[in-house]
Amino acid sequence: MSSSTVITNIATLVTNDPSLGDGSPLGLVRDAAVVVEGDRVVWTGASRKAPATDNRVDAGGRAVLPGFVDSHSHLVFAGDRTEEFNARMSGRPYSAGGIRTTVAATRAAGDAELEATLTRHLAEALRQGTTTLETKSGYGLTVEDEARALRLAARHTEEVTYLGAHIVAPEYADDPAGYVALVTGEMLDACAPHARWIDVFCEKGAFDGEQARAILTAGKARGLHPRVHANQLSFGPGVRLAVELDAASADHCTHLTDEDVAALAGSRTVATLLPGAEFSTRGPWPDARRLLDAGATVALSTDCNPGSSYTSSMPFCIALAVREMHMTPDEAVWSATAGGAAALRRDDIGRLTPGARADLVVLDAPSHVHLAYRPGVPLVRQVWRRGVREV
Amino acid sequence: MSSSTVITNIATLVTNDPSLGDGSPLGLVRDAAVVVEGDRVVWTGASRKAPATDNRVDAGGRAVLPGFVDSHSHLVFAGDRTEEFNARMSGRPYSAGGIRTTVAATRAAGDAELEATLTRHLAEALRQGTTTLETKSGYGLTVEDEARALRLAARHTEEVTYLGAHIVAPEYADDPAGYVALVTGEMLDACAPHARWIDVFCEKGAFDGEQARAILTAGKARGLHPRVHANQLSFGPGVRLAVELDAASADHCTHLTDEDVAALAGSRTVATLLPGAEFSTRGPWPDARRLLDAGATVALSTDCNPGSSYTSSMPFCIALAVREMHMTPDEAVWSATAGGAAALRRDDIGRLTPGARADLVVLDAPSHVHLAYRPGVPLVRQVWRRGVREV
Ligand SMILES: [Zn+2]
Ligand SMILES: [Zn+2]
Repeated sequence: MSSSTVITNIATLVTNDPSLGDGSPLGLVRDAAVVVEGDRVVWTGASRKAPATDNRVDAGGRAVLPGFVDSHSHLVFAGDRTEEFNARMSGRPYSAGGIRTTVAATRAAGDAELEATLTRHLAEALRQGTTTLETKSGYGLTVEDEARALRLAARHTEEVTYLGAHIVAPEYADDPAGYVALVTGEMLDACAPHARWIDVFCEKGAFDGEQARAILTAGKARGLHPRVHANQLSFGPGVRLAVELDAASADHCTHLTDEDVAALAGSRTVATLLPGAEFSTRGPWPDARRLLDAGATVALSTDCNPGSSYTSSMPFCIALAVREMHMTPDEAVWSATAGGAAALRRDDIGRLTPGARADLVVLDAPSHVHLAYRPGVPLVRQVWRRGVREV
Repeated sequence: MSSSTVITNIATLVTNDPSLGDGSPLGLVRDAAVVVEGDRVVWTGASRKAPATDNRVDAGGRAVLPGFVDSHSHLVFAGDRTEEFNARMSGRPYSAGGIRTTVAATRAAGDAELEATLTRHLAEALRQGTTTLETKSGYGLTVEDEARALRLAARHTEEVTYLGAHIVAPEYADDPAGYVALVTGEMLDACAPHARWIDVFCEKGAFDGEQARAILTAGKARGLHPRVHANQLSFGPGVRLAVELDAASADHCTHLTDEDVAALAGSRTVATLLPGAEFSTRGPWPDARRLLDAGATVALSTDCNPGSSYTSSMPFCIALAVREMHMTPDEAVWSATAGGAAALRRDDIGRLTPGARADLVVLDAPSHVHLAYRPGVPLVRQVWRRGVREV
């Protein structure tokens, strides 16, 4: 039997269990303790009631919350797009290749380089409190390069998404139907063994509703669960398709009709909002209030990628969600933890209650509100993953 | 003679000397080295030309820039305003006492508590690359409490500002003229020995133009140099008064007339912009482009305080300045380093050229642009102050 450890003297504990503590969705317990045994949480409650344990850690009056669940990133890539960003933000013309620039660099990179870049970003995210991180292919766009990306990703995270349908591969520019056939055929055969999810960029200039349906349906038939890049740059069929196919998440949701909002609210498909992308492209902010007020489940995620959102910081996304998307600090923290777990259809993470994975963050602050109150400040002091302190 | 150290293998060096490197205002040198001796920079240039030194540090292909100069903060305080922030951002009513809340808590706190809070925030700022930090009184508002704040601040920074004229002290609510007499009389006598600067919050509800003039003029007569909280919440006389009195800086500058902009552009008074305050209060963004295009000198600073801008992160302010105020990444980095130095009338900091203080930051990134390109990510890897590595 593994030894047990109590983390005590927690000023504010976010459990995400509304039956605990203050009864809010965050289930806040003041002056709290958490008991960890092996890789699991076995007890949560008021410090004074904590059971006897083998070891004791004093949180020093700080806040503890579930590790962040970043359910949307693109971290198998090579190359750099600093100049493209600099030109965009400086109002200078730049013949940006966009995603194609990263595709060319990624194809040219060796496995070791790709894996080193991935693990560097995973470590960076962990230092900022992210204990679960989904990541995607989508910069290979050949059978070999997509399968390679997923194989490398699967060494480091359980949440791997096949995104052969990121854009139409350059070689198929004149034959998009041929590329869809590849994505749903030989490429899917090569990729399915390495992935849990299938995703498609459903957008003008990428894949339309019928193409997206064909791709996601083919993936489902191979045991992959769907998620969708939907309604980012314009109105479109992505969100309704996601709901129709019971996708775990519709991601971006920047341009929504009333029907889209109602569809999300009436489903278990999570609306994953990615404010880092709007920040770095000066896009319009998704209307989080409209979704929340309609009853949709909202997740927050970084969209970390070298083109449109090169942040790995969930605390930054929380601060943006509060300032720009009018989420309350409580809602934003819920969406970055429990919301992310829902967007990955996981019930073992995103909460700190008995049976959950002992993935947690100790903040250099007495409450979770400080993640929005102190924007930009690196407040993550400790990170525990599967019961082991890693930061 | 002290030993010399070369920091070499710098992918991008920001010198802020336009006669160096690429000739831009940042004076960028690629594949660069810096030689430090004692507390000073003694040589800057291309790595391959670096002179022989006693010690050698490999920057690993990272970017190096001058330490950030945060020329505006309010860090001698006690108490917490988390609930006020939470209510404001959540759209809930809250009978906020505003600055008065912090005044009451600060007066009630012991010296040790105030100093511990100050040093904790200074250490936090240092970890984020701030090597010079101005801070103010203004939460005491009695002779004893203002003098105490400045005495404590002066133990930790050379850049100490007397802000007895933050708001009218509650005891003088019915006698603002009496409070101005105190601020320019007995309080000034007690405070002047501990401060370099005098500041006033020139705003409706605080001090009008004539009161501000009387306060700043009295301070000048005692050898204090003026700086002004100007034009934050509304149009007003603050900026023109700052220019008239040759203040080092007019801070906030959110509401400017064409005359205000012209006055700044025709003076050596720096316009210090504080995007953290606009972020945390949902205020309108200052128009940095208008100031820059008119030829004004612009600084960026945090305004770190527990009410309206509880961030100590200069990298966060840079990212906001680019996204929201349309500064280029180069302009924002200049304003957060050389601009801050100008706002403190210092020529020994904010640059990395021979004779400057060896205050510098090594980023976990190959260029300074990453401070905007990677918002929210803690990129500061090393901080050197006066030639000593402290982070
Ligand atoms: Zn994406
Ligand atoms: Zn201020």
